[in-house]
Amino acid sequence: MSAIIPFAEPFTSQQAVIYQQQLRERRPLVHCLTNDVVQNFTANVLLAIGASPAMVIAREEVRDFVVVADSLLINIGTVNHSIIDSMLLAAESAYQTKTPWVLDPVAVSPILTYRTELAKQLLSFNPTVIRGNASEILVLAGEKSSGKGTDSLDSTDSALQAAQELAIKYQTIVAVTGAIDYVTDGKTTYAIHAGDEMLTRVTGTGCALSAMVAAFIGSNEDSLSAAAAACLSMSLAGERANKTQGLGTFIFSVLDHLSLDS
Amino acid sequence: MSAIIPFAEPFTSQQAVIYQQQLRERRPLVHCLTNDVVQNFTANVLLAIGASPAMVIAREEVRDFVVVADSLLINIGTVNHSIIDSMLLAAESAYQTKTPWVLDPVAVSPILTYRTELAKQLLSFNPTVIRGNASEILVLAGEKSSGKGTDSLDSTDSALQAAQELAIKYQTIVAVTGAIDYVTDGKTTYAIHAGDEMLTRVTGTGCALSAMVAAFIGSNEDSLSAAAAACLSMSLAGERANKTQGLGTFIFSVLDHLSLDS
Amino acid sequence: MSAIIPFAEPFTSQQAVIYQQQLRERRPLVHCLTNDVVQNFTANVLLAIGASPAMVIAREEVRDFVVVADSLLINIGTVNHSIIDSMLLAAESAYQTKTPWVLDPVAVSPILTYRTELAKQLLSFNPTVIRGNASEILVLAGEKSSGKGTDSLDSTDSALQAAQELAIKYQTIVAVTGAIDYVTDGKTTYAIHAGDEMLTRVTGTGCALSAMVAAFIGSNEDSLSAAAAACLSMSLAGERANKTQGLGTFIFSVLDHLSLDS
Repeated sequence: MSAIIPFAEPFTSQQAVIYQQQLRERRPLVHCLTNDVVQNFTANVLLAIGASPAMVIAREEVRDFVVVADSLLINIGTVNHSIIDSMLLAAESAYQTKTPWVLDPVAVSPILTYRTELAKQLLSFNPTVIRGNASEILVLAGEKSSGKGTDSLDSTDSALQAAQELAIKYQTIVAVTGAIDYVTDGKTTYAIHAGDEMLTRVTGTGCALSAMVAAFIGSNEDSLSAAAAACLSMSLAGERANKTQGLGTFIFSVLDHLSLDS
Repeated sequence: MSAIIPFAEPFTSQQAVIYQQQLRERRPLVHCLTNDVVQNFTANVLLAIGASPAMVIAREEVRDFVVVADSLLINIGTVNHSIIDSMLLAAESAYQTKTPWVLDPVAVSPILTYRTELAKQLLSFNPTVIRGNASEILVLAGEKSSGKGTDSLDSTDSALQAAQELAIKYQTIVAVTGAIDYVTDGKTTYAIHAGDEMLTRVTGTGCALSAMVAAFIGSNEDSLSAAAAACLSMSLAGERANKTQGLGTFIFSVLDHLSLDS
Repeated sequence: MSAIIPFAEPFTSQQAVIYQQQLRERRPLVHCLTNDVVQNFTANVLLAIGASPAMVIAREEVRDFVVVADSLLINIGTVNHSIIDSMLLAAESAYQTKTPWVLDPVAVSPILTYRTELAKQLLSFNPTVIRGNASEILVLAGEKSSGKGTDSLDSTDSALQAAQELAIKYQTIVAVTGAIDYVTDGKTTYAIHAGDEMLTRVTGTGCALSAMVAAFIGSNEDSLSAAAAACLSMSLAGERANKTQGLGTFIFSVLDHLSLDS
């Protein structure tokens, strides 16, 4: 990887507010195929920001439900043989109906080839946004990563060039999130300098952020800015949340701030 | 639908208290086959009101477990091919052993035919109570609804006549919940004028309410009043919960009040 | 069962602190195959104490992931035909690679024979620790229990001899938890006199404790003391948590104290 960090523009809360308001007005129906660990938190995060979550997972139902949804999220965190068909059918339906959709390629890595192959298949259905941590984006781009499990051991700076190349190759938007979030379509890159390290100690904040990206792109057609607005909204909630009482209080303070501020 | 609202009697907290106390004394074992989004919240809600939740889902185990349980909940929110057999076997077992049981027909609609067909199959096993929002009750009764996803776009007033007809047709009790809750066996109808709109912004409050109905009918044979007591208990917790700090604080304040007041 | 309670040494917070610190330093990757009700709470509990949770469940992935994990948890609470293969493959992989692992035999009982047979199959892969309530340990040891569902109706005193015999028979460690926790390898037995009854009213505290045991034995080779340190950590968090506001506040206060104190 090059040591040169490509130019990135800051994305500010002044810019985000219009997307937040539009989301509340349009109340997008977000169809979520996500992992077993974060279903409840994801639904509450979507409700907090003003979206309407729906977890419809049966292979007999996903194709038709994508058609009525405003956007789709596919998160492969706890993928197994029972859900894989539903994911592929939903992605195909989104592709055919031009429904905006987000791919969260949780824990793709050389060790976990089953999900890594699935992620590559899903890429062929042209996700509107890919949201991942640095390790996941490096793996999808065919680079080496230090990832193990769901935590990234790489910095987003080290993955930015891979993110830009991935965005160009698949004509998509890549949001690579961490200490600094980058959101890029390969030409324009936004940088989000906000957030708090404590967010990494709450399970599902990345997964819930991917659902937020789905909600934001489901209510505004400027997917690049909408995705950046989602990232900034989560980062600001983490900054503002109560960090003095421990992890439990922090989690619910994040939900409080998502519901009050965004 | 007729514009005439049939007569409904108010159900009061004075009436509810006897059912709440009986539930705490009997500590009913509530067998839950519910959706992936709300499992944890449902279990904590049941523990808060003094019931004992048990999520036994294997098709090899559900028939026998229904026999030892005091009541059963079947919620089809995230139904798929893997759980559908368990739901049918559990409902059949409840029917055969006269175990009281609740059907929560989440998101039945003309779009989602797979679950709608399942809900109709489950009706043949004679649920003690059907708990749904207005859109779901209208669909089950064969009427038109405006529902999409899991949120109702119809008022409970507009669904009350359908609820009463459904109750008579299937010799069951229907609880249609929203701004006003109605609980009816087709002859007597209770109205619950309590609650708070913020409850609709927490995922799983309707699903957890269905589990509460199961707990209440599992500890008192007057299923109509017991179901009404469950609805009132949730509504009062929503009224009393802290609404000044945002969504996260509200969720846990609802659990606080369910554990303290009911 | 004999009425004589075998000698047990107290395990103190002074002893626990070294295992807590080591866990934070090593940040063990804990591979969890756990039940649908407690996935989120378990992940947050592991993050609170400084571990790294990963819920990888596909039968295509579990064998390889056990190899990179520091420890494994298998909890059979919501076992069904879809996950059973993954559990057996993961346990076999742990056995072959000498990865420490914890079995949580949720709700084994004469009524639920499917999971009870599975628990016995899993025992053949030599779990490092078995963590259960008194009823579950009695059933695994072939004794009579009063258990029904997931709540124990037996005291840990009444199960201690069975726990010791089970530990010797399978050359494992048994943690039988309740009002008093006992952790035994059949020769040495630690007793933990801490905790709060309110912990039994939060869903998943036992399941999350089993995950904590996995994290502790994944960061220290003295499995007996590490398991006792895990039990004491959960008990102290329950003692210290806010019990004045109701169940919701208590749950998140437990998470707060796990993150601050341990």
